[in-house]
Amino acid sequence: MTSARITPDLERVGGELETLSSYRDPAVPGWTRRVFSDVDREARLWVASLMAAAGLEVETDAAANVIGRLRGTGDRSGAVVSGSHTDTVEGGGRFDGIIGVLGAIEAVRCLNEAGVRLEHDLIVVDFLGEEPNDFGLSCVGSRAVAGNLGDDHLQLIGPSGRRLGEALAAAGGNPDALARARWEAGQVHCFVELHIEQGPKLEESAVPIGVVTGIVGIDRLLARFARRPDHAGTTPMERRRDALCGAAEAVLAIERLAAGGVTTTGRLETRPGASNVVPAEADLWAEARSDDEEWLRRFGGAIEDAIAAIGDRRGLGSSLRWLSHEEPVLVTDWVAATIDQAASADGITPLYLPSGAGHDAAQMARLGPMGMIFVPSRDGRSHCPEEWTDLDQVGRGIAVLAETIRLADGITG
Amino acid sequence: MTSARITPDLERVGGELETLSSYRDPAVPGWTRRVFSDVDREARLWVASLMAAAGLEVETDAAANVIGRLRGTGDRSGAVVSGSHTDTVEGGGRFDGIIGVLGAIEAVRCLNEAGVRLEHDLIVVDFLGEEPNDFGLSCVGSRAVAGNLGDDHLQLIGPSGRRLGEALAAAGGNPDALARARWEAGQVHCFVELHIEQGPKLEESAVPIGVVTGIVGIDRLLARFARRPDHAGTTPMERRRDALCGAAEAVLAIERLAAGGVTTTGRLETRPGASNVVPAEADLWAEARSDDEEWLRRFGGAIEDAIAAIGDRRGLGSSLRWLSHEEPVLVTDWVAATIDQAASADGITPLYLPSGAGHDAAQMARLGPMGMIFVPSRDGRSHCPEEWTDLDQVGRGIAVLAETIRLADGITG
Repeated sequence: MTSARITPDLERVGGELETLSSYRDPAVPGWTRRVFSDVDREARLWVASLMAAAGLEVETDAAANVIGRLRGTGDRSGAVVSGSHTDTVEGGGRFDGIIGVLGAIEAVRCLNEAGVRLEHDLIVVDFLGEEPNDFGLSCVGSRAVAGNLGDDHLQLIGPSGRRLGEALAAAGGNPDALARARWEAGQVHCFVELHIEQGPKLEESAVPIGVVTGIVGIDRLLARFARRPDHAGTTPMERRRDALCGAAEAVLAIERLAAGGVTTTGRLETRPGASNVVPAEADLWAEARSDDEEWLRRFGGAIEDAIAAIGDRRGLGSSLRWLSHEEPVLVTDWVAATIDQAASADGITPLYLPSGAGHDAAQMARLGPMGMIFVPSRDGRSHCPEEWTDLDQVGRGIAVLAETIRLADGITG
Repeated sequence: MTSARITPDLERVGGELETLSSYRDPAVPGWTRRVFSDVDREARLWVASLMAAAGLEVETDAAANVIGRLRGTGDRSGAVVSGSHTDTVEGGGRFDGIIGVLGAIEAVRCLNEAGVRLEHDLIVVDFLGEEPNDFGLSCVGSRAVAGNLGDDHLQLIGPSGRRLGEALAAAGGNPDALARARWEAGQVHCFVELHIEQGPKLEESAVPIGVVTGIVGIDRLLARFARRPDHAGTTPMERRRDALCGAAEAVLAIERLAAGGVTTTGRLETRPGASNVVPAEADLWAEARSDDEEWLRRFGGAIEDAIAAIGDRRGLGSSLRWLSHEEPVLVTDWVAATIDQAASADGITPLYLPSGAGHDAAQMARLGPMGMIFVPSRDGRSHCPEEWTDLDQVGRGIAVLAETIRLADGITG
C-alpha cells in the first residue's frame, strides 16, 4: 500500500458535472433526465466513454447497466465495487446519484495518478434507472445485478402501454438474457456508494462527511373510508357519515405516529368531489420509514387500529391495504469503519446517520458487504432544481471514497 | 269560494310520474335528465302537452321556461303562480322538482273538477334547468323570470366550449330576447312551490306536510395551504411544512363550526400527490349553509381565523377566497299561514322547517310573496336513484297545494 495523498481534481469533476447536466429534457423544468428517455441513453453513452478514458474496460450488461472494470494485481476474489445512478426524477437536480458515478470514476483516476495498484478488481457502475419510473419501479439496474428483477417486473405496463421489458430493450438492455446480468455473492468484496444526503443533518452539524448506518425500510399503505354520498344542504350534521372528515383524522393520526421514524400522507382523493355533496369515499396513500424494523412493525399495528377506530366512531366503512414493505438494510460494520478511517485520514470526524431515502446500495447489500458515504445537501433539499452541494464538498467525498477503496482493498472481509 | 273537497287522482299522477321518468339518459345510471340534453327537451315538450290538455294556455318563453296560464274570472292584478323544474342531477331521482310541476298541473285539474273558479290568473311553470349544470349555474329559468340572468351568465363556457347562451337557444329559448322573459313584481300575487324535503325531518316526525320557513343562504369558499415540497424520507418531521396536514386540520375545524347550520368540505386536492413527497399544496372547497344570515357572517369570520391560525402554527402560507354568497331567503308570512290553513283543512298539523337546498322559489321571492310545501323523502335521501316519496304522500302534497292556491286567490296581499 502507498500513503500518497489522494487529491481529486475539482476543475475536472466540476466540468464533468456541468457536461452531464447538459443532457436534460428541455421540455421539462429543472434538470430532468428520466430513465428510458433519449437524453438518459445519450448521457450514459457519454459516461461509458468517460469510464473508458479513465482506463476501465467498459461493458453494458443485459440490464443496460454501464459497468467499468479495472483489473486488480492479485488473485483476490470479489471486486471492490462503487457506483450509483445518473437518471433523475422529473424536475430534479444535478447531484443525486450523479456524484456517485462521476465521483467513482474520479476516484479511479486519483488512485491511478497516485500510483495505487489494487489487488482486487475495481468495478464502477452507472446503474440503470434508480429513480421511480413510469412503471412504478425503482432501482431497475441494481435489482437486476442483485437478482431481484423478475419476469413479473418486466411485464409491468407504463402509461403508453409499453412494458418495462420493451423499455429496457430500447435503453440498450437485453430482457431475454436478464439472468446474465445477475452477479453471484462471491463477486463482491464490498460495495461503497457516494451520495448526497438529501437531508439537512450534515449541514446543520457542519460536518462534511456522513457515514451511513443503514437505509430505512419503507411501508406503504392505502386507507379508504366509504359510506354513501349525502346532500350537503339537507342532511343534518348528526346523520352524516363524512368520508373526508374520517380521512382528515387519519392524516393527523399518521402525522402523530411519526416519533421514531418519519410518516407522510402524500396523496388524498375524495369522491364524488363536488362542493355540495358530503364526500362518500376518501382514499389516502401514506408511508412510514425507519431504520428500525421493530418500529415499522409497531407503526403498522398502531395505524391499523387508528383507521379502524376512526371508521367505527364515525360509522364509516374503513379498510387498510399494505402496498409494499421494504425492510431496513443495515450497513456492514467493517465497511462503515473503513469509511470512518478514510475520513479520519482526511482530518474529518464523520457524522453517523441513517439514509431516509432508498439507494442502489440497498440492492447491492444482497450480494455482500455494503457502505455509503454522504456529503451535505444545501438546506437539506433534493429532487428539485435547487438541489446543491458545493464542489469542494463533492471533492472531499471523492477523496474519502478513493481512500475507502484503497483501505478496503487490503481488508480480508 | 267553494268548499268542495279537493282529491288528487293518484292513479293519474302516478302514471304521469312514470311517463316522465321514462325520459332518461340510458347511458347514465339513475334517473338522469340533465338540462340541455335531448331527453330534457323532449320531456318538457311532453309537459307542455300535459299543460295544454289540462286547459292551460301554453307558451315557451325566451328562457325556455314552459309556462301554462289559466285565465282568472276577475280583474285582480298578479297571478297565483306554482311550479318547479323537471331536470335532474346526473344519477338523480324521480321526485326532486318533478312533483312540483306535475303536482301543479294536477292541482289545476282538481280545482277545475271541483268547480273552483279563481279570480286571479293561475300560472304553472316548468322552469328550465334548476339543477347545477355544466356551466356552473343553477336555476337558469327562474333566474331569467326574476331578472337575475345577465349577459355575463350567457357567456359562461361549458366543457365542450359551448356558451350558455348557445345551449339556451338549442333548448328552445331565445337568448337575444332574454329581457322579454323577465316578469315585473306586480305580475305575481304569490308563488307556491311543492317539493320533496330531501332531508329526514318529516319522516322522523311522521308528519306528511312541511311548511318551509326559509331557504338557506350558502357561502362557498376555497382555502389553500402552500409551502415547498420535501422528500418524504429525508426530511425530519420538525422541518416539514405539510400542506395536507394543514388542510386536514381545516376540514375538521369546518366540521366543528357547523353548530347552528351545516358545513361541508366536499372536495380536497393536494399536490404534487406522490406518496413519497411531503405535500406542498392543498386546496379545499367548502360551504356553509344556514337560514340565519348572522350565523353565516359569524361562520365566515371564524373559519377565516381558523385557516390563518393553522397556517401560522404550521409555518404554511394560507389563503381563503370566498367563491359565492347567497343570502338566506325568508318565506312570506301570509303564504306560510295559508299553507298551514290548507294543511289543517286536511286534518294535518304541519311541521315548520327551513329548506337546506336551493330552489326556484328563492329566485321567485324577488318578484313577490313566496311559500313552499314539503312532502317527506324516504330516509332523507335525494339526488340519487333511491330518492323516494310514496304516491299517497305526493297526493297529500298536491291536495294542500290546490287548497293553498284556492285560499291564496281570496287573500288581498
